[in-house]
Amino acid sequence: MLTYSFTDTGSDCLYIHLYKCIKNDILSGKLPAGTKLPSKRSFAKNLGISTITVENAYAQLQSEGYVYSLPKKGFYVMEITTPSATAPAVSSDNFQITRPSGYQIDLVSNQTNPDNFPFSIWAKLIRETISEKSEELMAAPPCGGIMELRYAICSHLKAFRNMDITPEQVIIGAGTEYLYGLLIQLLGFDKAYAVENPGYQKLAKIYECHQVCYHAIPLDHYGMDIDALEASCANIAHITPSHHYPTGIVTSISRRYELLAWASRKKNRYIIEDDYDSEFRLSGQPIPTLQSIDQSEKVIYINTFTKSLSSTVRLSYMILPKHLLEEFYRRFHFYSCTVSNFEQYTLARFLSDGYFEKHINRMRTHYKNVRDAFLHALQKSPFASHIKIHEEDAGLHFLMDIDTSMTDSELLQTDIQHSIHLACLSQYYFKATPEIPEHTLVLNYSGLTLEQIPVAIDLLNRLL
Amino acid sequence: MLTYSFTDTGSDCLYIHLYKCIKNDILSGKLPAGTKLPSKRSFAKNLGISTITVENAYAQLQSEGYVYSLPKKGFYVMEITTPSATAPAVSSDNFQITRPSGYQIDLVSNQTNPDNFPFSIWAKLIRETISEKSEELMAAPPCGGIMELRYAICSHLKAFRNMDITPEQVIIGAGTEYLYGLLIQLLGFDKAYAVENPGYQKLAKIYECHQVCYHAIPLDHYGMDIDALEASCANIAHITPSHHYPTGIVTSISRRYELLAWASRKKNRYIIEDDYDSEFRLSGQPIPTLQSIDQSEKVIYINTFTKSLSSTVRLSYMILPKHLLEEFYRRFHFYSCTVSNFEQYTLARFLSDGYFEKHINRMRTHYKNVRDAFLHALQKSPFASHIKIHEEDAGLHFLMDIDTSMTDSELLQTDIQHSIHLACLSQYYFKATPEIPEHTLVLNYSGLTLEQIPVAIDLLNRLL
Repeated sequence: MLTYSFTDTGSDCLYIHLYKCIKNDILSGKLPAGTKLPSKRSFAKNLGISTITVENAYAQLQSEGYVYSLPKKGFYVMEITTPSATAPAVSSDNFQITRPSGYQIDLVSNQTNPDNFPFSIWAKLIRETISEKSEELMAAPPCGGIMELRYAICSHLKAFRNMDITPEQVIIGAGTEYLYGLLIQLLGFDKAYAVENPGYQKLAKIYECHQVCYHAIPLDHYGMDIDALEASCANIAHITPSHHYPTGIVTSISRRYELLAWASRKKNRYIIEDDYDSEFRLSGQPIPTLQSIDQSEKVIYINTFTKSLSSTVRLSYMILPKHLLEEFYRRFHFYSCTVSNFEQYTLARFLSDGYFEKHINRMRTHYKNVRDAFLHALQKSPFASHIKIHEEDAGLHFLMDIDTSMTDSELLQTDIQHSIHLACLSQYYFKATPEIPEHTLVLNYSGLTLEQIPVAIDLLNRLL
Repeated sequence: MLTYSFTDTGSDCLYIHLYKCIKNDILSGKLPAGTKLPSKRSFAKNLGISTITVENAYAQLQSEGYVYSLPKKGFYVMEITTPSATAPAVSSDNFQITRPSGYQIDLVSNQTNPDNFPFSIWAKLIRETISEKSEELMAAPPCGGIMELRYAICSHLKAFRNMDITPEQVIIGAGTEYLYGLLIQLLGFDKAYAVENPGYQKLAKIYECHQVCYHAIPLDHYGMDIDALEASCANIAHITPSHHYPTGIVTSISRRYELLAWASRKKNRYIIEDDYDSEFRLSGQPIPTLQSIDQSEKVIYINTFTKSLSSTVRLSYMILPKHLLEEFYRRFHFYSCTVSNFEQYTLARFLSDGYFEKHINRMRTHYKNVRDAFLHALQKSPFASHIKIHEEDAGLHFLMDIDTSMTDSELLQTDIQHSIHLACLSQYYFKATPEIPEHTLVLNYSGLTLEQIPVAIDLLNRLL
């Protein structure tokens, strides 16, 4: 049974202390979703406290959504998730997805800082949309989304990524996860999908949930390993060529052409190009997308406003190759667009009135400042000689090798993990991978503020 | 090749006339999505007009989103859909889903009238949400949706449907179509699904898109035929017991218990209860949901705000039986909720501040007035002796038998179909059904206004 010490409750009363202990264990993953909590009576007996104290702690946890109760059965740990791009490894069952807000410092979640969301402009645009578009707001949009937004996305992609596409190629959906599901329906449940190893483990989970076959393909320094890809029976390669998550590898131009050539060799081969954080490449030349150099219509490009605007605006899009349009519309025209008209019209205005570009520029400066300050603080830290930083140029995270005798698993189970949320590179590898590198942290600074940096350094120092 | 007459262009210039002709054919389904339009030059030659005229007409169609162009290939008809609950039959390939706005009168679409949406209240609640909830709006919600909304839905279901459920049973999603997909992932791609015949054909399409096996089960007067259901190998029965679409049959209480008994007999059997328009039962006693009389946790209840609030607010929910919660959260906790926080918080307020109840009451009165006026006008019409109305008590549509020598297929291809959008009961049957009844119209009056009734009667009169 769970046991907590009541010797050091600080100024907290007993039930609050117990509530905090359980909450921390839920947030740290020690108590995973679905775990049954001990019965009030036996728990009270075990801890040497009154049943009422346990009852109050449970009630508090329930009202805050950490646990739920089933009549006559007891209390269970609620699922507490973050729609984070940085899902933990499926390879390590101990590593639970946890709610970022439970930590002092969160270097895993890609949740955006609320202060950075352009609330007043967004509110103004919603107001304008409601007052000027009442009829359009009530009209059923085409399954691919409202035309204004699709036109605005075309212009944006032309300006930012030099991509030449037409609005009917743009398909709007409520998040990339939804679009992946739609793509499986389009490309086929009988196809085999290739994902990156290490990589974004949520992808593999989505393929698992849809009961389709997938292969984890290793990377070399230039991107996905072409020989391994060819040797697998995969039809569809799902990759992040602009900035691989989490290693930061940028797929080289020659590897890009090799991937395109791989796709061209067979009829049913496609590449899903996930361009999830290309807006935030902080240094170096922007790299052309695979989509823009693809001559054979083999690339399906996916991107999202969830990363660039807010993790809680569920709006993503994919760009289909033209020869797939007829099949897509014929088979899926009956689906309703999953994003409400209110958000589609608001975002269309946000894009076409130039606010998005301003927002991205502002955010890029903000992230550059945070990154530079964080790197500087790390280099000046007492543990500077024990770390090595790499892949700090692109996107919103970097890697840090650390000099420690702890295994990654031990490291992630230290007490300090209650205060600072960390992920190891090893968590992004699939279970069966022969040599999984240890002692490299993946530090995501998208939610970090300048004020938090000294705290983060202090916590890292205690850890190392 | 397409041919249009230019003898009666009215006051329209040539290109506008051509644009209207093509638009009408797209809207009526004569030119289905994906159809290639003739090349400008050959079309011009064929019609005896200039290439510029064709070019202008195509440009107009393209700018309005009716067609799209592929470079060096030509112009194609865009998919134009309505997220209507009243999807046309898969059994009749000629019957295209068309955009309701193209008709003078639309008796097929369930699109709501913009005048009925509570814009000012909704705008006020969005404003309040943005100003008071900036932090919560940016926080990642649990995969099932924000707790406030799930609590509010529990209270609503308790008050309206006397259902006792807990918030963790409520799963929010961007439309019922998305939730069906999630349910297939939960219940299994290897299961066989039973749908109603006649029935809501979109369901069958969704099962087809997910490549799962489904059976079309006939109905008798009391609901889904139990013997046929038992004889099929179906594990999951997907039904609309409160008000069958489109026949209006209300599943009898004894059939409800038979269905529950059917589900209890095997471990993997479940019932999906789609309660899509229960808020709008206009007469008679409300019927308890299957979910509320289910003792064996075999019912998954689904409902939507898309029908009761607006067809463009993409927000639906399902109520999972408690014993499925552990599996659901364990397998799917990594999924992000597909509805943006903005809409979730706004709707939570709309529900808990009592606006939804007021809105439903207002709409019920409105629909009752429209229905009564429409029925009255039909009974006073010149063709009153040629029609028979039934199932007019519940929901937002009724059936009307008509006395005509035309087949349904002929009827739906008459010119009058350019002006009035009608559906026949036969369109809701699956292809292989032995005896499909003809000469019954399904009249959906949810988008009809009192002012439109004389026009509708006039158009029906010309048809009959």
